[in-house]
Order: sequence, then structure tokens, then C-alpha cells
Amino acid sequence: MNNDKFIINIDVEGGDLAPNSVLKGSQLYLEKNKDVIFNLYSRSEIIHPIISNYPLLKNNSNIILTEGFISGDLKPSESMKKEYRNSSLSKSIHALKDNKFQATISSGNTGAMMAYSKVFLKTIENISRPAIASLFPSKEHPVCVLDLGANSECDEKNLVDFAIMGSIYYKILFPNSECKVSLLNIGSEELKGNSVIQKTHEILKNQKIINYNGFVEANEITNTKNNIIVTDGFTGNVALKTAEGISKFITDSLRKELLTNNFSKILTFFLKKNLKSFKDSIDPRNFNGGILIGVNGIVIKSHGNSDEYAFLNAIGFAVKSLQSNLLEKLKNENR
Amino acid sequence: MNNDKFIINIDVEGGDLAPNSVLKGSQLYLEKNKDVIFNLYSRSEIIHPIISNYPLLKNNSNIILTEGFISGDLKPSESMKKEYRNSSLSKSIHALKDNKFQATISSGNTGAMMAYSKVFLKTIENISRPAIASLFPSKEHPVCVLDLGANSECDEKNLVDFAIMGSIYYKILFPNSECKVSLLNIGSEELKGNSVIQKTHEILKNQKIINYNGFVEANEITNTKNNIIVTDGFTGNVALKTAEGISKFITDSLRKELLTNNFSKILTFFLKKNLKSFKDSIDPRNFNGGILIGVNGIVIKSHGNSDEYAFLNAIGFAVKSLQSNLLEKLKNENR
Repeated sequence: MNNDKFIINIDVEGGDLAPNSVLKGSQLYLEKNKDVIFNLYSRSEIIHPIISNYPLLKNNSNIILTEGFISGDLKPSESMKKEYRNSSLSKSIHALKDNKFQATISSGNTGAMMAYSKVFLKTIENISRPAIASLFPSKEHPVCVLDLGANSECDEKNLVDFAIMGSIYYKILFPNSECKVSLLNIGSEELKGNSVIQKTHEILKNQKIINYNGFVEANEITNTKNNIIVTDGFTGNVALKTAEGISKFITDSLRKELLTNNFSKILTFFLKKNLKSFKDSIDPRNFNGGILIGVNGIVIKSHGNSDEYAFLNAIGFAVKSLQSNLLEKLKNENR
Repeated sequence: MNNDKFIINIDVEGGDLAPNSVLKGSQLYLEKNKDVIFNLYSRSEIIHPIISNYPLLKNNSNIILTEGFISGDLKPSESMKKEYRNSSLSKSIHALKDNKFQATISSGNTGAMMAYSKVFLKTIENISRPAIASLFPSKEHPVCVLDLGANSECDEKNLVDFAIMGSIYYKILFPNSECKVSLLNIGSEELKGNSVIQKTHEILKNQKIINYNGFVEANEITNTKNNIIVTDGFTGNVALKTAEGISKFITDSLRKELLTNNFSKILTFFLKKNLKSFKDSIDPRNFNGGILIGVNGIVIKSHGNSDEYAFLNAIGFAVKSLQSNLLEKLKNENR
């Protein structure tokens, strides 16, 4: 073990394609990077039969055995019960309690992940509530949207905190960015939107910590000069899920039409490279890795159906956050 | 003039492609149907130079001259000023005041349209607030979503009204439907969502007027057994705009990749029929025609960038609403 290496706690059991997607993604990371040690949290019967298939990972990780399993549909309140406290998700987050220079990644149950993070790690001093932040593909540059579902109802203090945290996180991922922040609204007129949005707008207009750029509408998320878009968790989650649903609907419709007859199947074969490049440009795996920002620890939420490449991407976010000392920056930001 | 015909008031000047898209769409309708007379609202200098290009329309319409112009970005509050009261949008909506068996269609400023409708027509008795309802493309059948932006903040009474109005409207458009109604939420657990959604859920679960089917998440809008999805105007507008933005982003990305070199351009040419069929399946023109439901008149909102085919579709919604006596049904529904 080398003390210069970052320690990344991995929930081996979380996600639709776990454990193999998780282990493969971690091994892929090690094939190109030497800067981390993985702590792999898993029940013995899950990890021991397969870990030898990943020799590089096996040699660069510790296995920490767990008990019980958090399913994707377990209610957050249930997850706090004693029988789930030794699960891979619970223990991998608990590990951050006294180890602020580690990070934890899971593709598992988001609600349970938030519950464990809030209870074990607590919110950072000065920050009213944690939020889920993630990147959306967009024409000019990726756009960081938060909150994507940690808080159904938010007040202006929460939204201002999200604006500050989003700016700090974006700067870490893209150091040369202007970090333009905007507030999601329905229409760019100053009079539209509800009272919380109006109050937040007034506060943000009159501060100098972040680069505030006014309102943005949801159709601009994929084509905007802004880098960070702030909204409450209910609205953010609806935008995220709508985007997922529409993307699937459109790509399914396209696939169906291109496979209707043999002639078009052959033509489509020749276009494969272009269609792949198209798929890459909208591939959610390239944007995988939400962060539960605002708790006392780096907790990365990988998408539930992450494959190894998506998981690899999430590891990248975790390492960047540790390298750049995200937690300290969130604590020290002039407020 | 035949008294058996429906009268449709047309805002000739509203929309990015007006007046020609509006006049062409109206003429297209008359080429297949004989059941309407159009009242065309326009300034003289706009309509008189071109109406002769549409002889069938000219012979089946009255021209009603107007003054002033409502631009797309005029604030709703401004639109109530005297100088705009004789505009095509204002007069075409005012016409419904004493003519409950007519309908009005505009591709113009939505906010101004709502303002005129509320002031001139008032809300139907028993209904707390009007809503904008429109169809989304979806895998199994079109889905009617409301409210799409008439009300930024809604309480449980408003949402229950939307559920009832949405059911009645959907039944008119698709008489054989089961009209399953669901409430947009972030997660299907009973505990999620804010307090207004929880209260609405309790009321809807315990009533027998409509076919309530519980919560739905935004990624299911494009693939659901439900026919009507109810939400507040802020969330609905964000979902609508997100869907528009993502659709444009994906189809632009696809176009870009398919046109990168001559070889793929040629192949794409041969796939044209399939790509057209794909485009049709997601074409918003086929779903054009929102309705401002809940005011004392049939007011149809056509999309701002409607071409003639989209406008034709909006006329179809207006006629169906008149044929089936939508207003009376909304008034008489057992409440």
C-alpha cells in the first residue's frame, strides 16, 4: 500500500449490471492509472467467486466483507434499519466518516445513498442542504445541473447554496471555464416563475461570489452559454427523467425504422461508423457520475444501469474531486 | 353562409411563419372538409395582398380587420393596454365572448393569449383555474399532459380540476380510450414528492369520477399505459421544453453525423424514406394544438413555429372540440 494513493471505496453490489460492470470498470481505470487503491465492499459470496477474473484489480484493492443487500426499490427509511447497516452501500459510505480524503462510488439505490450520507457524514457547515449534481450533454460544453432529486422542496437559501457548490464543482472539472450560472425558469421575463425563484434571482443578481447570468429555459439546457443550471430537486429530476425518456424514445424509433427491411439494414451497416459517432455524442455513459454535493465526503452516484465504461467515468469524477480538494473548497468558499 | 357550419376564428398574424402558414393550413383544411367557415383576423396590409393566393379559403371566410400587432415577446401585462386591444389575437379571442359555439386558434404569444382568455372569457364555473393541455408522442398512444405553463404554482384543487378536464378532453379526442390519469412525481413511492402532490394523490385515490392510476415518472411520459398526466404549470413547462431541447439536440447530432462525408450522404439518400418515417413518428407537427382548457371558450394554441401542416392539425382539434361539445361537458361534469 502506498500512502500517496487515493483510496476509492466501491459499492460492488449496487446497480443493474453489478458486480461485473463495477469490477470491470475499476480494472479499466487501473490499466491506465496508478494513483488509486480500491476498497471493494461486497458480500463474500458475490465477490470471491469472480475477483480472480480481475487480477490487476485484485492486486490493487482491499476486500471489505459486508452483509445484507440494498435493492434498488428499498425505501430510504427502510435502509436505516439495523439489518441493512452492514450492507455494501452502508459500509462504503460510512467509511468516509473519518476519512475525508477518500471517495465512495455506487450505482445503487439513490435514496438510500442520500440517507446514509446525511446520517453518517452530515452536511458541510454553512451549507443548508446537499444536492445531486450531474452533467448534461450540450452543444457548446457539458452543463452541470443541480439539484436532480435530493430535495423535493427548496427555498432561496438552498438554491443559492446550490449555485455556489455547482460553480466550485464545475471549476474543478473544467478549470478554464467562466462558470456562468443560471436559474431554471419558464420564460426569461423577470416576472415569470414562482416566488422562490424570484427571491433567488434577486439574491444572485446582487452578489459577487459567482458569475450569475440570469434565467434559462429548459429547452436551452442542450444549447446554452451557461455552465451551471440551478433548480429545485423536483424540477431537476423531472428534467433529467424527461431527457432520458425522450432520448430512448427517439433512438428506439430510429432503430426501428432503420431495421424495417433488408435493404435498409445493409445501408445502415455501411453507416455504422457515423451512427456510432452519433451515439457517442449523446451517450449518457460519457456523462455518468452524479455527485452528492454538500455532505462531508465525496459521494459519487453512478447511474443505475452503468456498464463498465460508465463506471470508469464515475471513477474519474471521484479522483478529480479528491485531487482538487473539493471538500475543503466547499468549506472555505467566502460566504 | 351556412348556419350548420362551425365558425373558427383565426389569428392570421400569430406565429413565426405567419401569415402564409396560417392561410395555407386553413386552405388545406377546406380542401378535405366542408364543415367550417373561417373568420380571419388580420390587419388589412397583411391579409389583402395575399388572400387571393388562397381562393378556396377566400370563398369560405370572412375577413375581420384589426389594428396593432402582438409580438412573440410582448409581456402579458402589456398586451392588456389599449393599443393592443384591437389586435388580431385580442379580437379573435374576444369574439368567443358571446359565441360559445365558435373556436379560436393562434400560433402567437401564449402569455397574451392566456391573458385575453381569462379577462374576456373568464373561467368556467366550478373550475379553479384554466390550464394548457397538449399531446406528447408516446409508444402506445399519445399522452395528454397538463398544465404546460398557465399556472406557475398550483394547489391540490387546481390539480384535481386538471385531472378532470384532461379526462374529458382526452375522451373527445380518443373516444375508445380508458382515460387513465396519473400524477407526475419523482419516484413511484407513496412518500416521495411535495405536500401538494401527496394531497392531490389522496383526493384522486378516493374519488370515482376519473380513472386514477397513481404516480408516473417523467421518463415514462414517452412509454406509459396512462393517457393523461397531470402536473403544475411550472413542472409541465420544464418537461415540455426539456423534451423539445433534447429532440432538437439529438436530431441535429444525427444530421451532422450523416452528412460528414459524401459516401454517407449517398447512403443517407437511400435511407431517406426510413428517416422520413422516423421523423414523422417524432414530428411535433403531428401533435400540434394545445388547448387553453377551463376558460369559457375553445381557445387552441398552435406552436409558435407551426407550418401549414401543424396549423391544419390544430384546426382538427378545434373542430373536434366543437363537434363534441367540450365546453358543455366541462360545465356539466359531475363534481
